[in-house]
Amino acid sequence: MADALDPVLNDIDRDLDNALERLFAWLRIPSISTDPAYAGHCREAAQWLEGNLTALGFETSVEETSLHPVVLAHRPKPGAPHVLFYGHYDVQPVDPLNLWRTSPFDPRIEEADGTKRIVARGASDDKGQVMTFVEACRAHLAMNGDLPVGVTILIEGAEENGSQGLPEWVEANRARLKADVALVCDTGMWDRQTPQITTSLRGLAYYEIKVTCADRDLHSGFFGGAAANPIHVLSRIIADLHDAEGRVTLPGFYDGVREPPPELLEQWRSLGLTAEKFLGPIGLKQPAGERGRLPIELIQSRPACDVNGIIGGYTGEGTKTVIASQASAKVSFRLVDDQDPEQLSKTFEAFVRERVPADCSVEVICYKGSRAVALPYDMPQLEAAQGALSAEWGREAVAVGAGGSIPIVGDFKRILGLDTLLIGFGLDDDRIHSPNEKYELTSFHKGTRSWARILSALAAA
Amino acid sequence: MADALDPVLNDIDRDLDNALERLFAWLRIPSISTDPAYAGHCREAAQWLEGNLTALGFETSVEETSLHPVVLAHRPKPGAPHVLFYGHYDVQPVDPLNLWRTSPFDPRIEEADGTKRIVARGASDDKGQVMTFVEACRAHLAMNGDLPVGVTILIEGAEENGSQGLPEWVEANRARLKADVALVCDTGMWDRQTPQITTSLRGLAYYEIKVTCADRDLHSGFFGGAAANPIHVLSRIIADLHDAEGRVTLPGFYDGVREPPPELLEQWRSLGLTAEKFLGPIGLKQPAGERGRLPIELIQSRPACDVNGIIGGYTGEGTKTVIASQASAKVSFRLVDDQDPEQLSKTFEAFVRERVPADCSVEVICYKGSRAVALPYDMPQLEAAQGALSAEWGREAVAVGAGGSIPIVGDFKRILGLDTLLIGFGLDDDRIHSPNEKYELTSFHKGTRSWARILSALAAA
Repeated sequence: MADALDPVLNDIDRDLDNALERLFAWLRIPSISTDPAYAGHCREAAQWLEGNLTALGFETSVEETSLHPVVLAHRPKPGAPHVLFYGHYDVQPVDPLNLWRTSPFDPRIEEADGTKRIVARGASDDKGQVMTFVEACRAHLAMNGDLPVGVTILIEGAEENGSQGLPEWVEANRARLKADVALVCDTGMWDRQTPQITTSLRGLAYYEIKVTCADRDLHSGFFGGAAANPIHVLSRIIADLHDAEGRVTLPGFYDGVREPPPELLEQWRSLGLTAEKFLGPIGLKQPAGERGRLPIELIQSRPACDVNGIIGGYTGEGTKTVIASQASAKVSFRLVDDQDPEQLSKTFEAFVRERVPADCSVEVICYKGSRAVALPYDMPQLEAAQGALSAEWGREAVAVGAGGSIPIVGDFKRILGLDTLLIGFGLDDDRIHSPNEKYELTSFHKGTRSWARILSALAAA
Repeated sequence: MADALDPVLNDIDRDLDNALERLFAWLRIPSISTDPAYAGHCREAAQWLEGNLTALGFETSVEETSLHPVVLAHRPKPGAPHVLFYGHYDVQPVDPLNLWRTSPFDPRIEEADGTKRIVARGASDDKGQVMTFVEACRAHLAMNGDLPVGVTILIEGAEENGSQGLPEWVEANRARLKADVALVCDTGMWDRQTPQITTSLRGLAYYEIKVTCADRDLHSGFFGGAAANPIHVLSRIIADLHDAEGRVTLPGFYDGVREPPPELLEQWRSLGLTAEKFLGPIGLKQPAGERGRLPIELIQSRPACDVNGIIGGYTGEGTKTVIASQASAKVSFRLVDDQDPEQLSKTFEAFVRERVPADCSVEVICYKGSRAVALPYDMPQLEAAQGALSAEWGREAVAVGAGGSIPIVGDFKRILGLDTLLIGFGLDDDRIHSPNEKYELTSFHKGTRSWARILSALAAA
């Protein structure tokens, strides 16, 4: 009854070079979603995937949202469980471009530190990861003429832009997204050898603050000491956001944040992820956030606030004695448990406005926010997927929370009633969102084999 | 014995259009000194002036310094006093370019608010001002075949870059710069109707701080709350630089700062320059610096600290969930009285380093600093110049201090033993260092006439 798995795995091994060629073609399309100048390339990336999935035998369409289109592909299997796979074809901006060793949209295989890796923007986040699932489907279809379970694939194009337009589209297309479980491939491994299923995700609230003081740039020689300086105002706001203990100072910020149960904390402690081990690979030693917390708490069960960008005044070479008229910063919060992004928006805006002098002005732009999500530990599919992953990697798959945000997971639960298995093969040093993003060849190859196994396991679950 | 002045003034009136054409030709050369890409244009601006002064009958040369060349021109007059005139041909960068109504290096006459003004980068600071002196010389030479006094003209090309290379050049060329008094045209009028001689200048110390945390840009979802953020570090440093009373918090910063004598303070108070009057024209209302000081104190007799630029992380459109590896800021101090820029550099660097976490790093670049200068009130030339200015403008010339820095004035005193008369015709709303810089046609025309009168007055002094 069950399709044979070994021929599928063998076919994945045999076809690896072709699979890479397919991925590279997709990586060459600069589908940067946050910059309107790349909107055409986003559509191109969607259309490329539509062609690929149609050729595999999916009923596929490119569908409009309020921002970039989504790709929707169906292959039903009556009587079998049905899964909804989600990923995104859009990628982060590439600046600072001068730090890339090779062009970000000219993918290549590099060898470093004894491993082969695919280097390109989107190699790991998320085109490489998406293609592990697509290639697993391809191999099943090639060897068995069918998939072990019914599959719907939904690949969006605005994940790096807060998934703008997606919740509305999901809401409007609920009937076409029916499934027993959702699968997402946009997370990482525990380490190089140990697969991971991510069971919770932090939420995200992202803001931009623009402070305007004088109505023009001023000469600091003439006005310095008398005229308000928006960089000073902005720096004061940012400095005030954290206290000396590394805690966020917004009133009520920690409302809804729960302490993990002692047994979970003990389990985390036993993982031995010290500050040195966690921060050493990126050149740091000491945790910068709340004092007295394990690194794993700081990035999983605790909220955080980071300024993601700041600009104002003269930033070219040399000196310019100017007092800028305007300065701006992008500020984001990672949320956990029951923290409410809408409440946060109100508190944050009030906090900012309180710190702007009466004769200056401020604009607070609120980008889309998302709540944290936690998955039930008793999902039947969780055990099946853990077994499949452990078989592939030869190690017990770890089930833990993660620091990043994938807003759609909360939407799937809210709109479709679906729980999500978050399984991905990224590594901590993949440099996603940074220059020289990479995806290990092992991640791609064994990731594809992992999904082939998981699809079979879910058929039996 | 004395050359006739009236024909000179008449010639200035008659030749105004030609004078503007000459100025425009100079303004078209984009001599931005702080950006190495414009080094060729700096030299071009020097050579243009060399040609102009040679044609007038000066013995002129373009001479090398460690950065951009200076223009040196001589016309001795045995038995008469000798003046050394200083100005600069370099200009500030033009960003943000999109805020210019017309191209910054395409000078034109605009009419607004009932006045005609020359609009271009450098129109006021300092090409337009320099040409008021050059055109005054031209008219004297045209009408009388000679100048009332011996004149040396020194025009440098790095004033907007801390006069890099100039003090060394002056030191090496002391013998060629002998004079009885120095004249500088790089300051402003008291108001549209009232001429001003600037009798003190604040010093300047300019730094750049570069904070580096992780060795790469990080994903704030994964690392947020655990990894140090250089924008937070930088904001803390900037916020800590001022206390709640607007005072600079650097230890010993106010050492060497003197309170003005009560009678001077009373004189300033009587000028009626309220915060509303001073800040209203730039869209502000309340002084941002030290509490309880007059605006005129804040910009003249009190030191100040301003962040002139800041940049870090993602500054494009939309959102990017990144923790930057590096962030940097340009920070400058305006100095008064006996504040020592060298001592300040030590204190400032220590202050910065104390606030950088042990596992992060910081680079503090120190651009050239200059002490404040104050001119003696009993200079014989001061009275002569005041009389000439009052005759031209029909109002008593005000003698006051100014907020900006012209480092060379201190060097002239130290190296050449020369006191400097600072006389200029800029207005507060000239937008020097900002988009749409302008110089009133009246400033240019009556400024030229003023210098013609001053040269004659100095011959008699």
